Amino acid sequence: MHTHAETDPAGRRAGDPAGSPPGDLAGDLAAIVGRDHVRTDDGALAAYARDATPLFHARPQAVVLPGCTEEVAAVLRYATERGVPVVPRGAGSNLCAATVPLRGGIVMVLTRLDRILEVSPAELLARVQPGVTTTALADAAAREGLLYAPDPGSRTVSTVGGNVATCAGGLRGLKYGVTRNHVLGLEAVLPTGEVVRTGGRLWKDVAGYDLTRLLTGSEGTLAVITEATVALLPAPEETGTGVAYFDSLADASRAVAAVIADGIVPATLEFLDRKCVSAVEEFAGLGLRRDAGALLLFGDDGSRRTVAGTLARIGEVCQGAGALEVTLAEDVARADALLAARRCSLPALSRLGSLTILEDATVPRHRLAEMVDRIDETADRHDLRIATFGHAGDGNLHPTCVLDPDDGEGAERAHRAFAEIFAAAIALDGTITGEHGVGAAKLPYLADRIGDDQVALLRRIKKAFDPAGILNPGKLGS
Amino acid sequence: MHTHAETDPAGRRAGDPAGSPPGDLAGDLAAIVGRDHVRTDDGALAAYARDATPLFHARPQAVVLPGCTEEVAAVLRYATERGVPVVPRGAGSNLCAATVPLRGGIVMVLTRLDRILEVSPAELLARVQPGVTTTALADAAAREGLLYAPDPGSRTVSTVGGNVATCAGGLRGLKYGVTRNHVLGLEAVLPTGEVVRTGGRLWKDVAGYDLTRLLTGSEGTLAVITEATVALLPAPEETGTGVAYFDSLADASRAVAAVIADGIVPATLEFLDRKCVSAVEEFAGLGLRRDAGALLLFGDDGSRRTVAGTLARIGEVCQGAGALEVTLAEDVARADALLAARRCSLPALSRLGSLTILEDATVPRHRLAEMVDRIDETADRHDLRIATFGHAGDGNLHPTCVLDPDDGEGAERAHRAFAEIFAAAIALDGTITGEHGVGAAKLPYLADRIGDDQVALLRRIKKAFDPAGILNPGKLGS
Repeated sequence: MHTHAETDPAGRRAGDPAGSPPGDLAGDLAAIVGRDHVRTDDGALAAYARDATPLFHARPQAVVLPGCTEEVAAVLRYATERGVPVVPRGAGSNLCAATVPLRGGIVMVLTRLDRILEVSPAELLARVQPGVTTTALADAAAREGLLYAPDPGSRTVSTVGGNVATCAGGLRGLKYGVTRNHVLGLEAVLPTGEVVRTGGRLWKDVAGYDLTRLLTGSEGTLAVITEATVALLPAPEETGTGVAYFDSLADASRAVAAVIADGIVPATLEFLDRKCVSAVEEFAGLGLRRDAGALLLFGDDGSRRTVAGTLARIGEVCQGAGALEVTLAEDVARADALLAARRCSLPALSRLGSLTILEDATVPRHRLAEMVDRIDETADRHDLRIATFGHAGDGNLHPTCVLDPDDGEGAERAHRAFAEIFAAAIALDGTITGEHGVGAAKLPYLADRIGDDQVALLRRIKKAFDPAGILNPGKLGS
Repeated sequence: MHTHAETDPAGRRAGDPAGSPPGDLAGDLAAIVGRDHVRTDDGALAAYARDATPLFHARPQAVVLPGCTEEVAAVLRYATERGVPVVPRGAGSNLCAATVPLRGGIVMVLTRLDRILEVSPAELLARVQPGVTTTALADAAAREGLLYAPDPGSRTVSTVGGNVATCAGGLRGLKYGVTRNHVLGLEAVLPTGEVVRTGGRLWKDVAGYDLTRLLTGSEGTLAVITEATVALLPAPEETGTGVAYFDSLADASRAVAAVIADGIVPATLEFLDRKCVSAVEEFAGLGLRRDAGALLLFGDDGSRRTVAGTLARIGEVCQGAGALEVTLAEDVARADALLAARRCSLPALSRLGSLTILEDATVPRHRLAEMVDRIDETADRHDLRIATFGHAGDGNLHPTCVLDPDDGEGAERAHRAFAEIFAAAIALDGTITGEHGVGAAKLPYLADRIGDDQVALLRRIKKAFDPAGILNPGKLGS
């Protein structure tokens, strides 16, 4: 591991958690979940000190893997009584340090709860435990001819529980919405041990405050999700994909606006800037044009009667908006290859340096080009390599900073640059995070986006769920 | 007005609000909003003692009509300081007494805030004040070639603020979702006077807890909504409608299941039972068949290339499921007439008696027929006339009880019958309200649906927003 990954550029990381476990933490937890499902060995504590966020780490005192809702409840009751922090997590693919145990305590890993309890074609829903991976859910739905629409980039490893906890987005957000739009009901355990069931199996249900949506995106700070009921759709008959190259991101952005103005809201409208296209082509050799200023990937799904027509029309609109070249994927293999180009942006960029910081901000769609200009200008000023890709349809950008191993001050400069980038997003009516979450990494910028009064309100809501403040302390609501 | 409307069958109505205003309430309010916008005359107090819910009424001490966010904030600060209840409302078309001022105090009417601030085709959104009617918003969107998807039955009078406060549903819920799926951001005033802005102009924004959705459906108990940013869609090129008659609701319900199993999720799938069809035909003379056991109205919208095909396919599926007759509307006029049949169910039934109680419950779609059987059996046992219509696609039923003027004990029997109907909905994995809300009318049944622990949690959340308990007391969170 590169040494810079061990430093905290902004002092945002908590210090080492306080000394040794209170009393016999491991023994007490073993009494609840069984000895085999508690880990206090060095390897486990080091592994669960991190998630996928660079620069953030803090060792827990114990790792516990409950096997059922009752065990989750018993651990939480115990933790509330003793005042021990608990950080719930799934696969740990989070990118804003939302599952790093900043204050030590217990990391509660929910991957043993990995059963798909039900897939109902009649009711168009599935009921799953939180540790099921997004792909496993999507595959189970597909086997019944159904679609689970949310598709976060990390879907092969990310869990449904984590998707719900972060309100994960993905490549199909414009047409299908994000995770919140597809959650019908939750079973969740409050930090004080009560098990609540919110929502249910229904599209229409207004009995009580919308706790289903409040828990969706609450990043493990209000309750631990132990079951989710999610909506499914009939699988579209057909999917199509195409690619358009432009001289500049500004041109690509105008093309996106023209597509929407034409009355088309396609499933996928992704962009890669020149630096990303270059990195992806070097990494994957897909035959992408490296001379263009921007690549726009578009796709739609639907009935056999419409998809080809919609794709052709998007292609025409892109041509009209000045595309250098438009190609429609002639077969599924080519479409998959194009989507792979988008999906491999992060690994492709990661190869270029020793430390890669993938960020997440959103602006209104028509301000995309302006935002990318600001990102590029900021990167130049701080002497950083920042490539940008993301979801053009919903204005969700992923500026990604790649640092060289010999750049001793790189992480500090990147931190200052991203602070400016988030401020720019807010100034353009955008937000500091579109889909990754606030976690620990974005918490310093939250008040700039939502205001001090709202931050104070979040704290009061957090207290209503978690009076002892044991659930994921130092994050949202702290 | 019929005398039974003045009695409370279950003692659920609060007593007369305590005496006269504290100090000079009217004068204090006039100092904030101007003398012209405060009413304490008998006519106003009587008018704002009620909403559209039969049997519930309670007089406020003053009615205030603020003209801007700052006035809303000043009234709320004043009310929190003095401990005076405030009940926000729009058009008062609520059907669960959510806007009846049970504890007296101030009714805050938001209809002066009736400006459409922005309709943006580029961003596919509109920004409106809360007093704009749903139809005015839909019309403004349509003029730009856009669709505001939620269409509650009361849309010609209901306000967007009220729609958000109740998470209103409507006839297009299955395909398009309900109000919560279309709200991007809110400006709202806390009971303590702080103005917060939640969400914004973005589809993807996870900065903080999802207060936008928490306020949506909070029924005026957490904050007063002073502005809403809502998502729009490109208007569909074409809309089509058809009607199928069946021997029984069980047959119609099987047809609905068969449509979904065929991979079709149409915009509209509404049903009327025999009693409703009969009342509507008598009322509107649309040429409906009165000999059938159930009418299924289906409709879809989308591209010119698909709508006719989808409608024809739904017709075939209905035939296959045993429809007595299927007709596709040959033109827009006939389609409008068919939709009018559904929309006039309530007025048509209201003519049959002196008091009409329209209720709202939801069950999973495939249990619709079973639920209607239970409703009919309950009605017979209590010697009541209950007709049922509703949204077959999402299982949302509106059992409607029509009482005779000479039925002295009718309201009491209806109350007992509905208690059984809600219990039946819960037993069938359904809920006590799909789209009307909890208000005062459903509060006695809330714990049966969501459990005591969740009710206690709602109270703590309410307290986080409203420490003095002044906002719509006696409702959700009380």
